[in-house]
Amino acid sequence: MKTIGVLTSGGDSPGMNAAIRAVVRFGVKNGLKVIGIQRGYCGMIDGAFKEMNFSDVAGIMERGGTILRTSRCGEFYTPEGRAKAAAKLKNAGIEGLVVIGGEGSLTGAKLLYEEHRIPVVGIPGTIDNDIAQTDMCIGVDTCLNTVIDAIQKLKDTATSHERAFVVEVMGRESGYIALNAALATGSEAAIVPEVPVDFDKLAERLFEERKRGKINCIIVVAEGAGGAIQVAKNLQDRIGYETRITILGHVQRGGSPTAFDRLLASRMGAEAVKALMNGETCMMMALRMNRIEHVPIAEALKSKKGLDMSLYELSLTLS
Amino acid sequence: MKTIGVLTSGGDSPGMNAAIRAVVRFGVKNGLKVIGIQRGYCGMIDGAFKEMNFSDVAGIMERGGTILRTSRCGEFYTPEGRAKAAAKLKNAGIEGLVVIGGEGSLTGAKLLYEEHRIPVVGIPGTIDNDIAQTDMCIGVDTCLNTVIDAIQKLKDTATSHERAFVVEVMGRESGYIALNAALATGSEAAIVPEVPVDFDKLAERLFEERKRGKINCIIVVAEGAGGAIQVAKNLQDRIGYETRITILGHVQRGGSPTAFDRLLASRMGAEAVKALMNGETCMMMALRMNRIEHVPIAEALKSKKGLDMSLYELSLTLS
Amino acid sequence: MKTIGVLTSGGDSPGMNAAIRAVVRFGVKNGLKVIGIQRGYCGMIDGAFKEMNFSDVAGIMERGGTILRTSRCGEFYTPEGRAKAAAKLKNAGIEGLVVIGGEGSLTGAKLLYEEHRIPVVGIPGTIDNDIAQTDMCIGVDTCLNTVIDAIQKLKDTATSHERAFVVEVMGRESGYIALNAALATGSEAAIVPEVPVDFDKLAERLFEERKRGKINCIIVVAEGAGGAIQVAKNLQDRIGYETRITILGHVQRGGSPTAFDRLLASRMGAEAVKALMNGETCMMMALRMNRIEHVPIAEALKSKKGLDMSLYELSLTLS
Amino acid sequence: MKTIGVLTSGGDSPGMNAAIRAVVRFGVKNGLKVIGIQRGYCGMIDGAFKEMNFSDVAGIMERGGTILRTSRCGEFYTPEGRAKAAAKLKNAGIEGLVVIGGEGSLTGAKLLYEEHRIPVVGIPGTIDNDIAQTDMCIGVDTCLNTVIDAIQKLKDTATSHERAFVVEVMGRESGYIALNAALATGSEAAIVPEVPVDFDKLAERLFEERKRGKINCIIVVAEGAGGAIQVAKNLQDRIGYETRITILGHVQRGGSPTAFDRLLASRMGAEAVKALMNGETCMMMALRMNRIEHVPIAEALKSKKGLDMSLYELSLTLS
Repeated sequence: MKTIGVLTSGGDSPGMNAAIRAVVRFGVKNGLKVIGIQRGYCGMIDGAFKEMNFSDVAGIMERGGTILRTSRCGEFYTPEGRAKAAAKLKNAGIEGLVVIGGEGSLTGAKLLYEEHRIPVVGIPGTIDNDIAQTDMCIGVDTCLNTVIDAIQKLKDTATSHERAFVVEVMGRESGYIALNAALATGSEAAIVPEVPVDFDKLAERLFEERKRGKINCIIVVAEGAGGAIQVAKNLQDRIGYETRITILGHVQRGGSPTAFDRLLASRMGAEAVKALMNGETCMMMALRMNRIEHVPIAEALKSKKGLDMSLYELSLTLS
Repeated sequence: MKTIGVLTSGGDSPGMNAAIRAVVRFGVKNGLKVIGIQRGYCGMIDGAFKEMNFSDVAGIMERGGTILRTSRCGEFYTPEGRAKAAAKLKNAGIEGLVVIGGEGSLTGAKLLYEEHRIPVVGIPGTIDNDIAQTDMCIGVDTCLNTVIDAIQKLKDTATSHERAFVVEVMGRESGYIALNAALATGSEAAIVPEVPVDFDKLAERLFEERKRGKINCIIVVAEGAGGAIQVAKNLQDRIGYETRITILGHVQRGGSPTAFDRLLASRMGAEAVKALMNGETCMMMALRMNRIEHVPIAEALKSKKGLDMSLYELSLTLS
Repeated sequence: MKTIGVLTSGGDSPGMNAAIRAVVRFGVKNGLKVIGIQRGYCGMIDGAFKEMNFSDVAGIMERGGTILRTSRCGEFYTPEGRAKAAAKLKNAGIEGLVVIGGEGSLTGAKLLYEEHRIPVVGIPGTIDNDIAQTDMCIGVDTCLNTVIDAIQKLKDTATSHERAFVVEVMGRESGYIALNAALATGSEAAIVPEVPVDFDKLAERLFEERKRGKINCIIVVAEGAGGAIQVAKNLQDRIGYETRITILGHVQRGGSPTAFDRLLASRMGAEAVKALMNGETCMMMALRMNRIEHVPIAEALKSKKGLDMSLYELSLTLS
Repeated sequence: MKTIGVLTSGGDSPGMNAAIRAVVRFGVKNGLKVIGIQRGYCGMIDGAFKEMNFSDVAGIMERGGTILRTSRCGEFYTPEGRAKAAAKLKNAGIEGLVVIGGEGSLTGAKLLYEEHRIPVVGIPGTIDNDIAQTDMCIGVDTCLNTVIDAIQKLKDTATSHERAFVVEVMGRESGYIALNAALATGSEAAIVPEVPVDFDKLAERLFEERKRGKINCIIVVAEGAGGAIQVAKNLQDRIGYETRITILGHVQRGGSPTAFDRLLASRMGAEAVKALMNGETCMMMALRMNRIEHVPIAEALKSKKGLDMSLYELSLTLS
């Protein structure tokens, strides 16, 4: 293998730049030519390729987002789109591919190999942390810290005003961020897609806690579990006191990555290149027991990583 | 004067604790008894008083919110409420009062003096920065830094995705936060209550910029200028591309105060006690030329601090 | 078991408060009386005990340090000291103990059980991350983020001035912080106690890099590997250009804990109480595969966690 | 005037990039050609010039350091060096100059005008805040926030361990950072070049405070007032308890600038170009009463801004 490509795809997550840097530098140091593919699979179809050298990735590890940009590419989800993309790769002499992204991106990579025999290796990057077989995905740790920082600020004013606050965080199908953020901030409740919520019971609990003297109340809600506006309405109708809303939105995707995400991404990036050089394909880099292991993408996609219900219980016990 | 009271009232702002600390410590060191009044004017009416000593305010300067809590108190805005409050003060031997808060709080303080001859001194604390006669109010600097930190994170992901983002910040009647945050982050536009916005023209400008290669777009909107949801709709109808929303909400009121707010609050707190000891009343502490000056509350309330239109122009020029 | 004690001992690390909170709240919710022991083993000998209830640990999770305080207690390292301490525990009806700390603290806990049959459970809290059998210790993640934040700031000015900087970080016997911080910031070198450094070779490498156009240079050195002042001197003699020093010192121990440390500490705290309630003793809580497992303290103490040499290699490859 | 140059010189300070951005964008929008001069006066002598356009300064406002780099240039402090530099400017068609830096840099600018009639305008950028006639210099606010953040972390561990800490901050001749940081963190003492310190008296005060129950102790010392190592020794000899040292070093110069520094730098940058376009020379931009005013560089250099002794008193009163 002499030339490999690297791309980021789907929703961006903090740490993707560290992964790109590691792929480029580890590749170059091992004699490979490394091609950056712009805007994910869209750029692959367009042939938006550019060779990247050691210095092209200087100073990017600490920056949020992805210097390769990203997209969700409808065309690539058709066989014709993938055929076009594969042709472009072959034209450019790209013999192996590192794909950094979430579930959809890894699925695309697998199809590219199955249909066009281009060796692919995946790096799980998504703030939802919903990918099985790996302890963590790149970006989750940074996202979680951004969220707890925001909630901590809310608590200051919540305590001063004796009010209830509803804060909406990312997670269309996964309550990972909401639950862990609630636990890490001692928030009163996490409302997540995986667990149905009984608003009457919740309202009663909050009411009891207020009677016992608790003067602030923070509810963290995953966007996929109804969203802040709806939850606030449901609560306000029941408990009657003023409820304020925060929707953090894409603030959660940005920011300089934490040490954890930089290290995870750097290790996975280097390991992904190693895997390609060893002739592997359709493998995903996974964090297990502090080591980077190679697991089949198919395994990782077979099941969604579920919510850890013991954490859910713990969050109720400790709040 | 032997005994003074201190309270925080209205919306909380970061730095209020530093002001409380300074009032208590400067007062105690100068031989005064200092009484903390809980929950603003509501606590005054209820007689929620507690003497505060040097160590009661240890370790609070760095914390957001206000340890005295705060409220908006309807009853105090009636002559009867104020009479009740004044009686409670006199009962408790409180001979002077430091009021930390915004416009409504200062108005209340002035009325308390006019109707009941209780000497009052005001400290401007509000994140809106809409109080005249002082360069800055306590909390504004921290709030602004919280906002630019959030917008900076948005920019990371905006750049990666080539999307438009609308972020709603505080300011019901004042565009101070929105304008300054836009200028300090190089955002594409600030939508503020003081300046009517022509959405057709704005959309055209954004469209032109995108054509010239600008790949991200952040619009900062004050809550009093329509709010994020409405602005996003107006833009989406016109420019057609995906627009995402962030509503920071009360996150903006919290957080450990910046150096600026701690210093300003500490100086104003000490100076307020000095003013009371000198027999002054109805004066507000004001920052001018790096000095803390005393200005009549009446002067400060006479006019609203307007938006600095040269900054508005500058934000357009530099973005 | 009806009454348990909890203490923090040795060097403090961020997240200890979250562990204390979890021990107290999980214990109380499960019908236990929980006694806080002040200043580690010193307070145990002195009988500095105080019952802690649910609200005593409100608002502490987000704060650095330890509300129970800590110490290194010489007397406890004598059999007489431990006998005194055990008597105090028995007097106070304390039937089980949660010890939060590093190697020395866990050794003390084990001796307390062996000599006096007081059931003990350990929680690994130390920023050195040198305890075997657990993927991570409480405080490491926060410390690492503090360090990379400081180094990132150094890089700004290093780039502007084209200078070399030496930054000394914690780690008397462990290079964990130095190595991981260097890797996470793309620093030019990590100097660690585990790997002897050849200054001539290092100087030559730095010199070559500068010739190739690298304009900044950051060397991260563990305090146990010579310290910044000595390393700077060694380099300056060889490469001739100006070298500036930063010694972060105890700044690294403080700060609001990260999400990771809050979650790890919360889970370990609850699990430690569970272990005591189940009649276990001399077990340490350990993070493995994202689960909290119980491992014998003796196992954890048998070997030091070594430095991951593959990370050392990676840091050289990617910098 | 058709072509202007811009440079940063001396020690870098956060916000310089925002000033460069404003000079370039305001200049370009007003029809000027703007030339970036690399590495301060050294680059001027070398003719290291490069035209800068609108997009060259995109995304730099939020970054620490200076993209133009900086230096202290011995040669420029000779008449011959300045003659060489002036010739290079004239050759390149540069008809006016914006100099961003501290005292030495402004002096150099003034000489360049006096000897070679090249119009110059200065922007005060230095974390020492020692330049007269302006309320603040660019970078001071960011630096101060970095310092208080570090000290806040020290306080966590200081409280847990009941220890004394000495932290050395920047300021060779100015105690501005040390004093303001001490005041903003409630530190026990600020040791500054402007005020001689009586170590016996200080030790006695600290000893008394400890007896009264104060369990932590932070001493902030400006590098020009002895440095941390010496101060710690002086104290340790007198009070006998363990003293730990932090030397923040150039960490204080880096970091993403605060809102205050971004706004100040943006306004001064635009105003500096306006001044040149109006035919002014040897003027320095100054912040006064929230406005940017033009003051003669000579006035600003005539006197050093002294330490505000009322703040020194206040810091003693409140700690």
